[in-house]
This record gives sequence, structure tokens and C-alpha cells, in this order.
Amino acid sequence: METVGRHLIAEFYRCDLSMLDDVEAIRSHMHAAAVAVGASIVGDTFHRFTPQGVSGTVVIAESHLSIHTWPENGYVAVDIYTCGGLDPRPGFEYLGRALGASKCRVQEIVRGLPEDADHDGTWQPEDVQIMSDTVSLTSIPQAS
Amino acid sequence: METVGRHLIAEFYRCDLSMLDDVEAIRSHMHAAAVAVGASIVGDTFHRFTPQGVSGTVVIAESHLSIHTWPENGYVAVDIYTCGGLDPRPGFEYLGRALGASKCRVQEIVRGLPEDADHDGTWQPEDVQIMSDTVSLTSIPQAS
Repeated sequence: METVGRHLIAEFYRCDLSMLDDVEAIRSHMHAAAVAVGASIVGDTFHRFTPQGVSGTVVIAESHLSIHTWPENGYVAVDIYTCGGLDPRPGFEYLGRALGASKCRVQEIVRGLPEDADHDGTWQPEDVQIMSDTVSLTSIPQAS
Repeated sequence: METVGRHLIAEFYRCDLSMLDDVEAIRSHMHAAAVAVGASIVGDTFHRFTPQGVSGTVVIAESHLSIHTWPENGYVAVDIYTCGGLDPRPGFEYLGRALGASKCRVQEIVRGLPEDADHDGTWQPEDVQIMSDTVSLTSIPQAS
């Protein structure tokens, strides 16, 4: 199962507008999200756009995280792709709180070779699904 | 519809083993894939792991591309996330050929604010779907 990964895809809505254009704050929170999932950071790239918006990626030993912000819309798109048995959800929960999101939409996709993904499903949360409904952050289990 | 993005998620199988551990070749092909979709590159991060494997991301003005390779398995995971009306599929087709993949699995997800995604569906290919079956590369339309 070495190729198996969990790819969490999140849309955060109604975020804290003051933060979404602050590239250093976004970079810091993405590093903290990587730490929250237990990942090892090997590199990053962050960019602030004109007139506004931030994009960035963090390459980890276990795949990557990415973020794109739309300050004018209070919207943020996040990906957290983890291999090696790491759970991406603590990173999602951390970022939802850090970004001040009041709503989100999240889905999780299994990546990898089909024979690896089928090899052992016991590590996989029962609620991994292709697409979830829009949920409020308060309904999502908090990280321990 | 400014927040709307197309996120193409691809698994490439049975790739050219000689290339998957060559970080400069992978980086060059990822830049070429960004060009193939008409994107503007603003930064990148690539890393070669020990004993083998390459991970990398390319941040573009229109979101990002990412790649992770498993040379020992001939497997490559690719994401191409494009905003601004760009079509990610020419990048997918380019990489499939460049990596020498003989099989792949691909899905495309719509990102963005729900009200933007619903605003105008005319730009969206009819076959955008959450999950496709495994297909051979020869059945995928070639880039013009």
C-alpha cells in the first residue's frame, strides 16, 4: 500500500477577509497545517497576486498541501494530499479555524495503484467519500 | 464565475521507469504541461527523495499543478487545477505522453463558490464528472 494516499479537497467559505491577502500569514498557517498532519516539509512556494489573493504549495515527504485565496469573495480552496498512512483531516480542521471559515465543503479521494488501494482498507475512515454535502465547520469533529 | 476552477486529478500507470526518478526531467515536463494549458508560471518547488521518487508543484497565476512519482511502481499522481477558464486537459494529455504512461485514471472536479459554479455552465465540458473508469490513454482525445 505504499502508493496509497488520502487526498482531502476543501472549499472554505466566509473566511476572515483580513487574513486572505496576507501571504506570510497564509504561509505560516500552511506550515502549521503540515505539522498538524505529522508531515515533514521539504519545500514551499508562495505568491501574492495583484491586486489581491495568495497561492501557495507546501511539498512534504508525504505528498503536498496547496492553497488559493480569493479575499474579495472570502473563499479559499485547499488540498491536503498525504501518503504514508497520515490522516489529512487535522490539517483541514486547523485551517478551517485559522482562516475563520464559517462554512466549508470537503471531499476525500483515495489515490494510488488500485491493487494497493484495495490491499488493506482497515486504515481508511468509514466516511471517506467522493463528495460530501456542504457542512458547517461546527459539525466536523475537532482534532484531538 | 471568477472563483470557478477545474481540478483534474490523474493517476498514470505503467510509466517510463527511467524518467520517474529524474527531477530535472520531471520539472521540465511540468513546466511544459503548464504551458500546454496556457498558464503563467509564478513559482515552483521540486524535490528528489532518497532512495527514489520525485515530488513537485508549479504555482501558476491560475492555481497550480502537482506531481508525485513512484519509480518502483511505475506510478505517477498528477493534479492540474486551473481557474480563469483554462482547460486542464491538454496538460493531462501532454504528461501522459511525456511519462510514457500506458494506462491512466482521471477525474475532474469543479472548484469554487457554489453560486459562481452555477452561474454559467456553458463553458464546462459535458463529460466533467466526479470519477471516471480506468481508461487507456489511446481513448483520450489528443490535444489539438
